Amino acid sequence: MSVNVLDKPSIKLELFEKLESEVRSYCRSFPTVFSKAKNAKMWDLDGKEYIDFFAGAGSLNYGHNNERIKQKLVNYIMEDGITHSLDMATEAKGHLLNTFHEVILKPRKMDYKVMFPGPTGTNSVESALKLARKVTGRETVLSFTNAFHGMTLGSLAVTGNKFKRQGAGVPLHHTVSMPFCRYHGDEADTIAYIEKYLEDSGSGLSLPAAMILETVQGEGGVNVASFSWMKKLSELCKKYGILLIVDDVQVGCGRTGPFFSFEEAGIEPDIICLSKSIGGYGLPLALTLLKPELDIWEPGEHNGTFRGNNLGFIAAAEALSYWEEASFQKEIEKRGSLIEETMNGIQQKYPNVAMEVRGKGMMMGIAFEEGDLAGEICKACFDRGLIMETAGTDSEVAKVMPALTIEIDVLKEGLARLADAADQVLGNQS
Amino acid sequence: MSVNVLDKPSIKLELFEKLESEVRSYCRSFPTVFSKAKNAKMWDLDGKEYIDFFAGAGSLNYGHNNERIKQKLVNYIMEDGITHSLDMATEAKGHLLNTFHEVILKPRKMDYKVMFPGPTGTNSVESALKLARKVTGRETVLSFTNAFHGMTLGSLAVTGNKFKRQGAGVPLHHTVSMPFCRYHGDEADTIAYIEKYLEDSGSGLSLPAAMILETVQGEGGVNVASFSWMKKLSELCKKYGILLIVDDVQVGCGRTGPFFSFEEAGIEPDIICLSKSIGGYGLPLALTLLKPELDIWEPGEHNGTFRGNNLGFIAAAEALSYWEEASFQKEIEKRGSLIEETMNGIQQKYPNVAMEVRGKGMMMGIAFEEGDLAGEICKACFDRGLIMETAGTDSEVAKVMPALTIEIDVLKEGLARLADAADQVLGNQS
Amino acid sequence: MSVNVLDKPSIKLELFEKLESEVRSYCRSFPTVFSKAKNAKMWDLDGKEYIDFFAGAGSLNYGHNNERIKQKLVNYIMEDGITHSLDMATEAKGHLLNTFHEVILKPRKMDYKVMFPGPTGTNSVESALKLARKVTGRETVLSFTNAFHGMTLGSLAVTGNKFKRQGAGVPLHHTVSMPFCRYHGDEADTIAYIEKYLEDSGSGLSLPAAMILETVQGEGGVNVASFSWMKKLSELCKKYGILLIVDDVQVGCGRTGPFFSFEEAGIEPDIICLSKSIGGYGLPLALTLLKPELDIWEPGEHNGTFRGNNLGFIAAAEALSYWEEASFQKEIEKRGSLIEETMNGIQQKYPNVAMEVRGKGMMMGIAFEEGDLAGEICKACFDRGLIMETAGTDSEVAKVMPALTIEIDVLKEGLARLADAADQVLGNQS
Amino acid sequence: MSVNVLDKPSIKLELFEKLESEVRSYCRSFPTVFSKAKNAKMWDLDGKEYIDFFAGAGSLNYGHNNERIKQKLVNYIMEDGITHSLDMATEAKGHLLNTFHEVILKPRKMDYKVMFPGPTGTNSVESALKLARKVTGRETVLSFTNAFHGMTLGSLAVTGNKFKRQGAGVPLHHTVSMPFCRYHGDEADTIAYIEKYLEDSGSGLSLPAAMILETVQGEGGVNVASFSWMKKLSELCKKYGILLIVDDVQVGCGRTGPFFSFEEAGIEPDIICLSKSIGGYGLPLALTLLKPELDIWEPGEHNGTFRGNNLGFIAAAEALSYWEEASFQKEIEKRGSLIEETMNGIQQKYPNVAMEVRGKGMMMGIAFEEGDLAGEICKACFDRGLIMETAGTDSEVAKVMPALTIEIDVLKEGLARLADAADQVLGNQS
Repeated sequence: MSVNVLDKPSIKLELFEKLESEVRSYCRSFPTVFSKAKNAKMWDLDGKEYIDFFAGAGSLNYGHNNERIKQKLVNYIMEDGITHSLDMATEAKGHLLNTFHEVILKPRKMDYKVMFPGPTGTNSVESALKLARKVTGRETVLSFTNAFHGMTLGSLAVTGNKFKRQGAGVPLHHTVSMPFCRYHGDEADTIAYIEKYLEDSGSGLSLPAAMILETVQGEGGVNVASFSWMKKLSELCKKYGILLIVDDVQVGCGRTGPFFSFEEAGIEPDIICLSKSIGGYGLPLALTLLKPELDIWEPGEHNGTFRGNNLGFIAAAEALSYWEEASFQKEIEKRGSLIEETMNGIQQKYPNVAMEVRGKGMMMGIAFEEGDLAGEICKACFDRGLIMETAGTDSEVAKVMPALTIEIDVLKEGLARLADAADQVLGNQS
Repeated sequence: MSVNVLDKPSIKLELFEKLESEVRSYCRSFPTVFSKAKNAKMWDLDGKEYIDFFAGAGSLNYGHNNERIKQKLVNYIMEDGITHSLDMATEAKGHLLNTFHEVILKPRKMDYKVMFPGPTGTNSVESALKLARKVTGRETVLSFTNAFHGMTLGSLAVTGNKFKRQGAGVPLHHTVSMPFCRYHGDEADTIAYIEKYLEDSGSGLSLPAAMILETVQGEGGVNVASFSWMKKLSELCKKYGILLIVDDVQVGCGRTGPFFSFEEAGIEPDIICLSKSIGGYGLPLALTLLKPELDIWEPGEHNGTFRGNNLGFIAAAEALSYWEEASFQKEIEKRGSLIEETMNGIQQKYPNVAMEVRGKGMMMGIAFEEGDLAGEICKACFDRGLIMETAGTDSEVAKVMPALTIEIDVLKEGLARLADAADQVLGNQS
Repeated sequence: MSVNVLDKPSIKLELFEKLESEVRSYCRSFPTVFSKAKNAKMWDLDGKEYIDFFAGAGSLNYGHNNERIKQKLVNYIMEDGITHSLDMATEAKGHLLNTFHEVILKPRKMDYKVMFPGPTGTNSVESALKLARKVTGRETVLSFTNAFHGMTLGSLAVTGNKFKRQGAGVPLHHTVSMPFCRYHGDEADTIAYIEKYLEDSGSGLSLPAAMILETVQGEGGVNVASFSWMKKLSELCKKYGILLIVDDVQVGCGRTGPFFSFEEAGIEPDIICLSKSIGGYGLPLALTLLKPELDIWEPGEHNGTFRGNNLGFIAAAEALSYWEEASFQKEIEKRGSLIEETMNGIQQKYPNVAMEVRGKGMMMGIAFEEGDLAGEICKACFDRGLIMETAGTDSEVAKVMPALTIEIDVLKEGLARLADAADQVLGNQS
Repeated sequence: MSVNVLDKPSIKLELFEKLESEVRSYCRSFPTVFSKAKNAKMWDLDGKEYIDFFAGAGSLNYGHNNERIKQKLVNYIMEDGITHSLDMATEAKGHLLNTFHEVILKPRKMDYKVMFPGPTGTNSVESALKLARKVTGRETVLSFTNAFHGMTLGSLAVTGNKFKRQGAGVPLHHTVSMPFCRYHGDEADTIAYIEKYLEDSGSGLSLPAAMILETVQGEGGVNVASFSWMKKLSELCKKYGILLIVDDVQVGCGRTGPFFSFEEAGIEPDIICLSKSIGGYGLPLALTLLKPELDIWEPGEHNGTFRGNNLGFIAAAEALSYWEEASFQKEIEKRGSLIEETMNGIQQKYPNVAMEVRGKGMMMGIAFEEGDLAGEICKACFDRGLIMETAGTDSEVAKVMPALTIEIDVLKEGLARLADAADQVLGNQS
């Protein structure tokens, strides 16, 4: 099922092996050539249909090629609206700024200025780290075990994954990795642990500029920070004059239910990083939100060629319209419950296999203690026309995060395929 | 002249001042709200027309909203071709890989594998630095005075600009800044200088993993490296087993005439960074080209959410069709000569004002020794409906780099406005 | 009581204030001009006698101007034995190597090569860190909270004290500070904590080259690592291929009883740092002991002008003769008990003042929870002719570490003065 | 000829091979066991006499076991003067402070405070770097090609030697290596080169805290900075607010004629590092001199156990008495001329061998362009009972630096041996 616009001969997987670098990865897990997509479904060149439980690693919360957004986008292109504008003022950008302010910030009584740091999550994280260091005049940033914040050197330095870190080719500095919520078991109070390092002038830790937090660690294994832990962490930051950065790149934009993942924790981060689904249509876009009093940037002190991806602005503004409807969050929670139900079912069916169901909203995972069970399940899913990926440093978690807009019946069909795949893999375990 | 798709009330500059971070910069040089654009022209909301001599800082070599590309893009979107795909294999990506191979690499007898490092120039540079360090097992990278390679920490460490570097908020490591071609005047042999540091085991310089080079330093002040200097630098790299990275993000894709800026120098870089105009339509896209024998990446060792910007693939593949026509490079050179002519005319007209005309192809600049003459000229240009920016660390160069596809009459009109602006500013100097 | 050899006019404290840098410190705690000393006593220019419970911060385990050593030293000087020899082979050096081998290593069945890294503790630590990094090809070194290893940049990077670290003026890299024994309370298993970071590939910690440990943290507050903790730490190192460096600079040479502080823990460090009392007479000297299989140094890869302090060799060799007598360790333990008894007495007398008695052998301390009680007690001691210093990052510990050779009656007199001083200070607390 | 005090069996070289680390170096160049020494002569255990043209790498400017100093030292020891005192005020220390002030600083109208940073050159350099960074709030320090400042991480980072740097096992940061006087040949103006980097805000160099300079690079190859170059460098520092640190550890204390090596250049360093011969008798001692206005140290911000090596104070103070006699400098220059004469003679005798005579005062060297001629000459010298070492990163310089107090006839005899050794080695070259 080829896209007609492409008049070239049909593309085969061998082409990628020959011409593309060995660094490619997902095409190895999902070995076929995809051509079309709609909401929660994808089709490959042979016309095979797949249900997508991966959603562009969280970039497609509103589904593939969302029809509402698509119309706006095509109209804008057809009218020769500005496409690329660096950081000049454009109508499309103004429209997004305005919409974001009216639909997201104002109803939540949140007072932040918006920075366009470049079109990717790592741009947003790098800008957040720079600003935190500039504002405080300090260098150290605390990150958390199993954090993932990006692949450029600044973001990589706050990422926990050893394999990714070694890819840097240089030692990564000015950061300290502290234990995430429950890292040392349910009993250990990691907040007390961190505070001990902060209060003790002999701990070897200098006062940090910031802490950078994912409220749910997507790549790190669907590890969920409890609201009370977040609350205490936020208080710790205030007590010691440390800025709190929340990286909501993957779990923001409704992934866990509310627009911001931390809303229900009652915390107020100093800086917020958004990307992935903020672009609405899967287009590269990122925002960094900063408390107005932190906005001491010099003009152009951080910049980037693609800060002004106007197609992204158009798509993003339209996507935000979903948040004008109070029902949207409820629909997410409903779908989340269905996912959890299936996962709990799997767990109950195989009491002899050590596993844990984790997650929140529509980011759920089953973590397996042993072997490569998660990987085998994802493989079995692919064989059944279901796209699902592992998470966790050792790929020990089978992760489900479909489009938030997935149709209920498609979701159920996908979950049935997952249950079936789990049966195949786990049935052999007993 | 608003874009109809946007049904919100008209956008004013005040909106940006209120809602956007102080870090915004170009909107200060060009204080108006742009809405539409076509090839080398832009229009603001009041309907005022501007000729664009800035071209998205080199991202719009094929002009704004190029009609050929636009049709492909809209058709692809309308057919629900894959938009976002991480690094899965897609038809659109295969199409680009194939086209790039056939149209660019094969005719030039260049053997490189293609890596998609994320959609921006700094992603490409970071991936190049990582790979060079991994391949060689060394840490130091040599960069050049007045280099600009990006704003994430790895790229910033090879960037010369002190203001940008300080923005890092942490010391930048593992890099040494060496003198660019002619940095110490026409007499000083900077290649000999560098070699002395390499050959002397007491120089304090450890053997570097790589050198990273812009053949023409766009941001750094339109400084042109001579072909013989590049040739000698390349030989130095070979002699000492140092990898040569060419950052062709701004000056590749025909900006100086040929597709790659270094083609005529007869050198063969080990790694090549492409972004900006490779996206064709101003869409975020970047490629890293690597010699096959360097392709020792582990799968996913460098990754990123927006590696698979399929709209960018579609636009990029179509843009490459320009390079199937031998006449394209000639047209660039013709336009370049017109620009140079105007600049020489300005220089001859004001012999008492110390200035130098610099550049190659369609990236030309006039560097002024004193005061803020470049800035004043750019401002006078804007008043005349011409968008032009300064370059150089102290903004001492007035830079001209229009779309390569600019119509001859539009180019001439723009140059006339530039000459007029120069008269206004420099007339006062005598 | 001036030394006759000095024919200059009497020296006053004002001289130091005028000519010496503000960095001077101990002369502020003990504001008088000292001129003579013998074993555990010092005299100032006014002839006032002091009992010394500080012993050169652990450099004078054999007392001031030990008579046995002194005779050897003066004879050697009178005969024009080599004084300074870089690292040439000299008779005095051979004599020390031989003695150290026969008296210390052989009876303990320890197989180590001896390196002379320069004459101070920090030289030894820097050489140990270099070697560990060279042997493993790794960069990170784990140190412990409240560690103190020296003031040059390599050693400072493994030191916990924030004030000292900030003195570096640059960020300190390639080290991670892990919790010492009981750092998070008696319940928390810090070994398990550290192992979690080692085994989890997402922890953000790269495999370290080495851990560097003081078995009792002298400067850090007289914190004692339990033998079982040391044993487990040693096993952790073995399991993960991490080198174990024991810094016995302050607590070696019998301070805690046996010659090496770790003997009774049954561990076998890969590298051992010795300085302070190894010089016997208070002369600058340091040794680095390395397992023979680690001795992959290139000649001169680490060097230093004063590696060949032959007066130190002579004094050191003679001092080792104390260890030929089995009774020596017993005498230390006897004295240690007397100190502990006094400290326990103070604690029992003031149950309302929160304090803890810590230490081992002849390094004992009382840690106070609140205020500057330790400092006040040391000051009151000085008024009573007793030299005693605080330890701990916040100077919260009153530390007692006299010469190991202190006469029992002098020790008792000193302890009586301490008890009296404590009464003065703590009596006011109730 | 054993020292009687040592009653152990005679020491053989094999002992060192068996018990001492492979890192030992000079004992490989001078393979014998030394036992006694007097002024410029040394004797080994077999009674063989050597003339010493190495003088403890510059630590024995006043000769081995200088009789004047020896008497003071022994008397002080016999009277139980304080030996070790941390940084307490002692009579011996006051005496040295006073003498240094009266004999050295006051007559030269130099206003500096004295810091005791620990007993070695690298301690002094580390303290100087710390202070410069603290005072300026900047991190970068400029060092020079072929500089040698020490082996601890801070000092190593400003040392040029690649082999020594690699020994660090970690990348060395916060320093930039700039070309020394004449590094790029006689024509190239390295001051202009450095200034270009300072004045250009795009050079990649951040404003440094300090420059650290050896006026004659002893280890680096006896490279002499001209007075005019030093003067210009000093002016550059003043112009940009950069502190100038002179490391006079090896070339101070009269090595080049005057007490400070820079006196005749008419510059006034902000910080001066002294060690090696400041200890007078070869005893470990170091001073850091600082302009009073820079003395912003907090008490104890830099410390060290052996800051109070009182035997060093006694010896140092007595050694300074040489500088009360105006004739001393003249005697140095006279001896220097004799050395230079011999060296020039060698050069003239072998016009076909490419060599250069370098140096100042009593630090002179012959640099050979090819092969290991310097090493072979030093070896031939040793065979003739003359101790001489190479300098330069590739050991390409045969260096002569005897005690300043060497008797004229001993000097002449040594030079005759050198000439004879040169004949043996260079005679074969023609």
